[in-house]
Amino acid sequence: MAKNVQKIGWVGMGRMGYPMAERLLDAGHDVSIWNRTKSKAEPLAKKGGKIVDKLSDLAGVDVLFSIVSTGKDVNDVYFGNDGVLSAANGKVPGVFVDCSTIAVEESAEIRQHLQARGADFIASPVSGNAKVIKAGKLSAVASGPEPAFRKVEPLIQTFAPNGVSYVGEGELARVCKIAHNVMLGVVIENLIEITLLANKMGVPRHAFLSFMNNSVMGSMFTRYKSPALVNLDWTTTFTPELLRKDLDLGLELGRENDVPMPVTAATREMLQTHFGAATLKSDPDDYLRKDFAALAETMALMSGMKLEPENKKVPNGLES
Amino acid sequence: MAKNVQKIGWVGMGRMGYPMAERLLDAGHDVSIWNRTKSKAEPLAKKGGKIVDKLSDLAGVDVLFSIVSTGKDVNDVYFGNDGVLSAANGKVPGVFVDCSTIAVEESAEIRQHLQARGADFIASPVSGNAKVIKAGKLSAVASGPEPAFRKVEPLIQTFAPNGVSYVGEGELARVCKIAHNVMLGVVIENLIEITLLANKMGVPRHAFLSFMNNSVMGSMFTRYKSPALVNLDWTTTFTPELLRKDLDLGLELGRENDVPMPVTAATREMLQTHFGAATLKSDPDDYLRKDFAALAETMALMSGMKLEPENKKVPNGLES
Amino acid sequence: MAKNVQKIGWVGMGRMGYPMAERLLDAGHDVSIWNRTKSKAEPLAKKGGKIVDKLSDLAGVDVLFSIVSTGKDVNDVYFGNDGVLSAANGKVPGVFVDCSTIAVEESAEIRQHLQARGADFIASPVSGNAKVIKAGKLSAVASGPEPAFRKVEPLIQTFAPNGVSYVGEGELARVCKIAHNVMLGVVIENLIEITLLANKMGVPRHAFLSFMNNSVMGSMFTRYKSPALVNLDWTTTFTPELLRKDLDLGLELGRENDVPMPVTAATREMLQTHFGAATLKSDPDDYLRKDFAALAETMALMSGMKLEPENKKVPNGLES
Amino acid sequence: MAKNVQKIGWVGMGRMGYPMAERLLDAGHDVSIWNRTKSKAEPLAKKGGKIVDKLSDLAGVDVLFSIVSTGKDVNDVYFGNDGVLSAANGKVPGVFVDCSTIAVEESAEIRQHLQARGADFIASPVSGNAKVIKAGKLSAVASGPEPAFRKVEPLIQTFAPNGVSYVGEGELARVCKIAHNVMLGVVIENLIEITLLANKMGVPRHAFLSFMNNSVMGSMFTRYKSPALVNLDWTTTFTPELLRKDLDLGLELGRENDVPMPVTAATREMLQTHFGAATLKSDPDDYLRKDFAALAETMALMSGMKLEPENKKVPNGLES
Repeated sequence: MAKNVQKIGWVGMGRMGYPMAERLLDAGHDVSIWNRTKSKAEPLAKKGGKIVDKLSDLAGVDVLFSIVSTGKDVNDVYFGNDGVLSAANGKVPGVFVDCSTIAVEESAEIRQHLQARGADFIASPVSGNAKVIKAGKLSAVASGPEPAFRKVEPLIQTFAPNGVSYVGEGELARVCKIAHNVMLGVVIENLIEITLLANKMGVPRHAFLSFMNNSVMGSMFTRYKSPALVNLDWTTTFTPELLRKDLDLGLELGRENDVPMPVTAATREMLQTHFGAATLKSDPDDYLRKDFAALAETMALMSGMKLEPENKKVPNGLES
Repeated sequence: MAKNVQKIGWVGMGRMGYPMAERLLDAGHDVSIWNRTKSKAEPLAKKGGKIVDKLSDLAGVDVLFSIVSTGKDVNDVYFGNDGVLSAANGKVPGVFVDCSTIAVEESAEIRQHLQARGADFIASPVSGNAKVIKAGKLSAVASGPEPAFRKVEPLIQTFAPNGVSYVGEGELARVCKIAHNVMLGVVIENLIEITLLANKMGVPRHAFLSFMNNSVMGSMFTRYKSPALVNLDWTTTFTPELLRKDLDLGLELGRENDVPMPVTAATREMLQTHFGAATLKSDPDDYLRKDFAALAETMALMSGMKLEPENKKVPNGLES
Repeated sequence: MAKNVQKIGWVGMGRMGYPMAERLLDAGHDVSIWNRTKSKAEPLAKKGGKIVDKLSDLAGVDVLFSIVSTGKDVNDVYFGNDGVLSAANGKVPGVFVDCSTIAVEESAEIRQHLQARGADFIASPVSGNAKVIKAGKLSAVASGPEPAFRKVEPLIQTFAPNGVSYVGEGELARVCKIAHNVMLGVVIENLIEITLLANKMGVPRHAFLSFMNNSVMGSMFTRYKSPALVNLDWTTTFTPELLRKDLDLGLELGRENDVPMPVTAATREMLQTHFGAATLKSDPDDYLRKDFAALAETMALMSGMKLEPENKKVPNGLES
Repeated sequence: MAKNVQKIGWVGMGRMGYPMAERLLDAGHDVSIWNRTKSKAEPLAKKGGKIVDKLSDLAGVDVLFSIVSTGKDVNDVYFGNDGVLSAANGKVPGVFVDCSTIAVEESAEIRQHLQARGADFIASPVSGNAKVIKAGKLSAVASGPEPAFRKVEPLIQTFAPNGVSYVGEGELARVCKIAHNVMLGVVIENLIEITLLANKMGVPRHAFLSFMNNSVMGSMFTRYKSPALVNLDWTTTFTPELLRKDLDLGLELGRENDVPMPVTAATREMLQTHFGAATLKSDPDDYLRKDFAALAETMALMSGMKLEPENKKVPNGLES
């Protein structure tokens, strides 16, 4: 599959989708882009992106990427009245690659429908946020028919240069993404526990996290959350509600498969206390729209601590 | 403090101590070395190390490093009948830097005795194992009088090039090391939970861990434990008993400081089940001397799974 | 509502239903009984029970009681082609009282359908097993329209002399029964933890449980489970699977209502390990059909203990 | 051992000791009483109690009972300069029975000293509070040399008519009392979880607890805590700090004996959050001197609930 020859379609210009598509363009690919709010895509025209008006304009591409908010959105984009598959010419992209984070059942249903239309489906959720993409450190996980995956693997690697791992058939990549987010929840809760402990005993949070980040336990995640835990900046990257949903999805899989997950369960219940403690705030709903790392405030309350920002410039590990 | 001019003493030639001292020698420092089993130190003579016969031969150094097994060992090395401070000439090194992992109380007592002798004491435990040192990725945390720390900081950085974080007065570095090991315990338990879940659902462990290691959740630790979880190689790096001890030390600090640590506590109790499940083995004591990652087998039993090695060559992230 | 004047219908002659209906007959009530296997009901004819052939024969009663296995069964009994409401004469009992343990949603749907037919519905699950009924110690919880409840309250009390608590409208009694079973799960797990601890330290289990049962912590439940924990008799009263289902229902309600339930969650995950440990048995499926108290064997394994029956006659607290 | 013939000594006139000694007097025993604050004992003179001035006045009794606050107090009473064993005549009571709640190690040390003086020692902590004693429902657990226990068994039963269980040699009764208090902690936490869940869904707390108390899960404990949970009356019976101490003692025993106690550990960490949440109160220290059942307020906060007293007269199960 010669680079630059195949035609790529891209749907989704959100905080993730835009910089991911941009990487494909920067690498010289032929990318046609559709977005509900067309204006968001337009800056990419300067980089060679072909902004299209209708989803059905993408019916003729070889590989169609999507990264949207929900399973229903993926469904609408593919199968809606004005969806990619509604093209008058009856054309169908050979491979669909969906990078959204959606449920296993939704993914399975979409796969079935695409198969019926003769198209292959690769589920390929990613690990990282917009800053991670910009730093060239995004990674991905993929599942679906292996031959189809091998065709699109170099494309995925273009925007996920930290590596794309093929994990098997069907929706297994969705399972891996849920497992990934379970770990994210457990690690943030534990990191908060030990950061508060060290802090209460006299270690500045920035000093403690500097040690942890340099240590064998340090990850991209512990590094890019450090500024938040040090300076109490709860600018949203992921809400407590979304994290709780993913922990529940993980526990649900554990139940269906008879795998005990005691530490995941303990984490989930502590995260739940954050929703109750939010009622102490003047605008609880607004507070719960802030970043999940604000859980540190709830844990601090339970530790009898009142946190103050340390106002320290802390590296997030994604600096260029 | 001009490099190569000050005299360094080194006590401890174990799996950690040897390669750490080697790095100081490689950087051109003047290092005198004592070890209970002298022969272990001798290969370093070729790199310029001065192997001494008695601990008291180190009384004249400027900075004395120690990395031994227990607090009692540190005590013996410093204050024993034939210890560093027993020198006939009454000389005392200006700064003692201890890199062992010992308890807070032991460290405080040693500090007090050193102060009485006019010496400064820097507690500086490290994060990593022998392979990490060889890969040049060791890191350290340090506490004690700041001026003394600043004097020895470049030396510590020589063997801990991934960074040395100063966290404050007294034994705070010990607290940070305990917190670090608490996180190690929580992360291994959680990693096992999600790896088994993905595995039981059909994802090969090596594929799952490849994704996790590339992801934002990946750490040096998740990478260097991956070969073990994939191929069930339980060659000891750290025993379940030592990990349990550190989790208990962390919980103890949580109790003394009124910090709830529910996820740490859940981890601790699951690790405990490993000691019971070990009774299923033909030689339980031998089994419990294996690596703590063998906890994966206990969790697999509780998940109704029988693990088999995948016999896959998996990177440990420390390859040169 | 004069006793003995109103007509009562009874559906369900299982281990619970038979002795409950018997108590109504013993108290002199006019009870018509239907059971799928008619022969099971026949012994009650001697006590004045009127055994009927068709469910629709019960259409003319004033109060219809049901205690069957599942929500679907209740539905079939009431609304099936040959159900109570299929009577040619179009008659409908004034109050339906269901004592089965079914899900909240099922109960709500049944209520809606009964309301449409002009009948009141009282959900009234009970606490206890067949032995508890015989000992005259059954209790009940009830919800639904209060006036309807007050009409049937004396009837429920006849078979639940330990008390019937009215908890409000709709399906709240179902919620209370789930909560009750959550506590059952937590108490058995905790009782096992402490019994094993005392046992391992040298206290015979029968001696420990004798103390606990006499103490302020003793309940009918701790007493009637004591013979099992002492003599390892796992004759089924309730399966681990049913207990797990109820713990999951409780956790589900906690999630829907934003109530953290950390101890319930910890219990649930430990119970899960029992399903995995069952794979050590020659016939795991058979083992999992035994009583949930066999969890003691799994916890013993995790404690490195091998339990032996103490072969002690232990009171179950229900002796007459 | 003929009743009324042997001489009994009693030390300790606290909330528990007074009514326990009173029961011995009511049964016609010859009881000599010492208390630090003599006036507290004086009302018992009317019932035949012989109030003595000095501990050494009790040296001539056959059986000496003690129920005081701490292990140190027991020690002082027995072995202090003015203690029971300081009598000029060198007399020593044949059996010492201590009903205090003290640590295993303290108890073992006292036993050793008494043995050296030729006296037997029975550890016999009790289950219940002052109201339970008055209701004639106290129970006890006992350990020590069995022949000595059999001698004093009828005396213990006089104040613990709900039963006294002999559990073995040495300090095993202390272990059982700790286990008992562990269960108390787990049950209160779980009872709070499910009561809040039912309450938030619409069930009045008094109705829910009425059901639970009548049910097979109901215990003396759930009954006598019900008024507190219904009306939010936190009059102290036992402080959160004492409960936390006993949970920690239980976990400590679990550690020493390799028994995993995950549900106990989860309970302990939730109780810990109560100490942090107390900082929201105007006088945290005062708040923490209230009853441990106030944990319901902390759990309610985490559930986003604001509890109000229901102002319902609720039976505590100890009414005469």
